[in-house]
Amino acid sequence: MQIAIIGAGNVATHLAKAFFNANVRVDCIVSRRIKNARALATQVDANSFSNMKKYKQWGDLDFVIVAVKDDAIDEVLESGLLINSNVLHTSGSYDSHGMQQYCKTYGAFYPFQTFRKTAIVAIDEVPIFVEINESSLLPKVHELAHLLSNKVFDLTSDARRKLHVSGVFINNFVYFILNKMKNYGAHNDIDIKHLMPLLHQTIDNAINYSENLQTGPALRGDKQTMNNHIAILEDDKILKKLYVTLSSMIYEEANGKEIEL
Amino acid sequence: MQIAIIGAGNVATHLAKAFFNANVRVDCIVSRRIKNARALATQVDANSFSNMKKYKQWGDLDFVIVAVKDDAIDEVLESGLLINSNVLHTSGSYDSHGMQQYCKTYGAFYPFQTFRKTAIVAIDEVPIFVEINESSLLPKVHELAHLLSNKVFDLTSDARRKLHVSGVFINNFVYFILNKMKNYGAHNDIDIKHLMPLLHQTIDNAINYSENLQTGPALRGDKQTMNNHIAILEDDKILKKLYVTLSSMIYEEANGKEIEL
Repeated sequence: MQIAIIGAGNVATHLAKAFFNANVRVDCIVSRRIKNARALATQVDANSFSNMKKYKQWGDLDFVIVAVKDDAIDEVLESGLLINSNVLHTSGSYDSHGMQQYCKTYGAFYPFQTFRKTAIVAIDEVPIFVEINESSLLPKVHELAHLLSNKVFDLTSDARRKLHVSGVFINNFVYFILNKMKNYGAHNDIDIKHLMPLLHQTIDNAINYSENLQTGPALRGDKQTMNNHIAILEDDKILKKLYVTLSSMIYEEANGKEIEL
Repeated sequence: MQIAIIGAGNVATHLAKAFFNANVRVDCIVSRRIKNARALATQVDANSFSNMKKYKQWGDLDFVIVAVKDDAIDEVLESGLLINSNVLHTSGSYDSHGMQQYCKTYGAFYPFQTFRKTAIVAIDEVPIFVEINESSLLPKVHELAHLLSNKVFDLTSDARRKLHVSGVFINNFVYFILNKMKNYGAHNDIDIKHLMPLLHQTIDNAINYSENLQTGPALRGDKQTMNNHIAILEDDKILKKLYVTLSSMIYEEANGKEIEL
């Protein structure tokens, strides 16, 4: 297989390295910031360009992976350079049908994971959700995805967008809370390792039990404890707002009425 | 060691069973709901009462564990029956000094974990935070805690309350989000096992990296994606509110200004 990757951000970086490690030829990396393109290209033995026009083999590749921000995907396609290419975007939310007029075949290659350049990811554990408009090409898309992971699934754009929503909650929102708590712990002499059994139990309770195992002062409507907590958080506007908002929701859902905090 | 446990709820149940398994004599379980007291007492070979007055050996016990809701602790103490006892409450937020006038010695025995009767907990992994007003008794409190867990730490009431706040975020709030996502997944044909690698990476990123590894549309201020997601969540008032609130916070914290969603 021979591919090109457009983008040199978090997703592009993880995918390029994973393909390289799987002996896929990454022939070209394009990024408007040539420094980023070069930094990634060096690691995967690829050519690097700041402008798609400078690369001449778009039509010869097996796939072009467009791993840029959602609102930059159309811009890439509008170059007209991918009209003879099999183009796969990596977005959770972008509707693949939008690519119709710009490529020979088009679809999605969506690894359901959070990627940051500096964080190690076990790519072989990551479910990859694929979509392609031309069914005869589907086996080849699966072949490409299976080079990275054994967890490859077909998914329409509509279903992928719903999956992406759950990813926002599970990663973006949970990470935000955990990162806040890491900082709160650092400021209050709380050793992060003491938090881990509770965090693991939390996940176990949510994933492995069908019944609702919510606990805590919000569930009980224990206003005295909640007001004590809010007073402790007085100096941290965001933590306080998070506390009040989530406690209100938990109470309201469990008790069918609102609570004033 | 010989103890009694006041309460027959989630915490009392887990502690009573754990003490029983550690060969601590649980002589008595008290709960206003005699059915609950009996159900637990049967499992740990204890006597059961609906009223503290019916038990005559309060002064002979090594410890009395008060594992009731915060706002019921004072009520238990005001009975006056524990004046010659070593009393330990199990609350994250209750200030132990409030027990001063009612007991010989008093303190806290706080297992930092979420307990529901039906959910299995590895008690030996749970950090137990203890406090006692009489320092000569501290080794005995440690001895009691070490029968359950190797992770035993001294902690003042003030520090314990701050720890409890972090427990609310890490358990109550994260659980709420995960449980919501389990239900969302069930309604949208999303296999929960596909969510696990993302969840594990989220925790790994939060715990094992010092830098901020937040990602997602809120961080980028990608309004189009956020508005798509909000439209998908239109029918679920709580999920929609959670999405808008948390996205706004993430954007605001990263960009130093508000965003309208």
